[in-house]
Amino acid sequence: MIVHHHPFLAPCRFVRLALAEHQVVTDLRVEPFWEGRPEFVAVNPGLTLPMLADGRGTVIGATAAMEYIDERYGATRAGSRLMPADPFARAEVRRLVEWFVHKYEEEVAGPLVTERIIKVEMPARMGGGAPDSQAMRAARANAVAHAHYVGTLAAQRKWLAGDQFTFADLAAAASFSVVDYLGEAPWGADPAVKAWYQKLKSRPAFRPLLLDKARLVPPAAHYADLDF
Amino acid sequence: MIVHHHPFLAPCRFVRLALAEHQVVTDLRVEPFWEGRPEFVAVNPGLTLPMLADGRGTVIGATAAMEYIDERYGATRAGSRLMPADPFARAEVRRLVEWFVHKYEEEVAGPLVTERIIKVEMPARMGGGAPDSQAMRAARANAVAHAHYVGTLAAQRKWLAGDQFTFADLAAAASFSVVDYLGEAPWGADPAVKAWYQKLKSRPAFRPLLLDKARLVPPAAHYADLDF
Repeated sequence: MIVHHHPFLAPCRFVRLALAEHQVVTDLRVEPFWEGRPEFVAVNPGLTLPMLADGRGTVIGATAAMEYIDERYGATRAGSRLMPADPFARAEVRRLVEWFVHKYEEEVAGPLVTERIIKVEMPARMGGGAPDSQAMRAARANAVAHAHYVGTLAAQRKWLAGDQFTFADLAAAASFSVVDYLGEAPWGADPAVKAWYQKLKSRPAFRPLLLDKARLVPPAAHYADLDF
Repeated sequence: MIVHHHPFLAPCRFVRLALAEHQVVTDLRVEPFWEGRPEFVAVNPGLTLPMLADGRGTVIGATAAMEYIDERYGATRAGSRLMPADPFARAEVRRLVEWFVHKYEEEVAGPLVTERIIKVEMPARMGGGAPDSQAMRAARANAVAHAHYVGTLAAQRKWLAGDQFTFADLAAAASFSVVDYLGEAPWGADPAVKAWYQKLKSRPAFRPLLLDKARLVPPAAHYADLDF
């Protein structure tokens, strides 16, 4: 399975985690999406990452990829399937995945990664350059509000979407992980969110994410520590 | 089935169309989401519309609602199910639904509806007031680019996602319909997109949308005409 991705886009990390949880062997290809390479635009006009390609077809975007992974590989997890069976539990997983893939991405992870990683890699003529401190301040304030929300869920439920470990935990952890790389995760804001993230970070599927390095931006000192 | 919605949010229209295509009887409740009513925030902290509630549970957001409708009512459509059976065809439907629920909404329908309808209904202390002409200009330019993309799909395929009529057609038509209400749909930009929309507009499920009226903003003269 070829995975076209960017290591610091949270929706790509979510799908890498989901594939790893299903033991799918992947061939990761980094796509510099801001370049809009014509060969890539031709198959993916929205330049949406991740994109899965397995020789028979393509699956574009984290939401479609989650459903594809569950439909194709979900049965291999038997009693620990990442999409629950109950219709309303499924809806809750999908609501939370959407929350992280879109809302958290727009309000927190996307701006922080764009300002601190992507703009450093991007040439100035494509919009690269120094981070916008106003965008960073807004994203940091949002990060605290989101940490409180996730902390509330983590305190009330066994896992974020309910009693069962699901795709929602992977989507949320993927989002927190890129913010944590940058040292911007407000772990002090909520003890429940930190305890929940610690469980996620210890999973074998998480290891490759903890080895990711941005070319010009080193990870926060505690990034790969399971005890942070 | 109670549907908490706003008549001019395209993701809500998409779900109304999907429910109507499955003959589900609905009880529509307009939610003035910008007010952030505490009772609504308590069940729906992201203030995401639409929200379905059928007495047994809630389903929040257009993507979760689409999957719920397919899982619960899809079988009633037998040979004309709105989600195809092939895994990659499903992924293509989901890619396009995401395109309209998120990308088109952010770039075209959301800004036009916010500036021309929502801000007129909203009190000034909540951000109501005169439309922002710069936001309108950007959305109009984006509307033309999106019309060309949809026109290309409509010209190459029988329906937007392929040979089969799917949720992707409903999501796209819902988005075009709010823009068309405002007289902002660039029908001249692409003959294929107009011909495709005409087919959608003629479906019985579409009728209630053509009767929607914003309190202070009348529809474009051709809005309800099947021959526009």
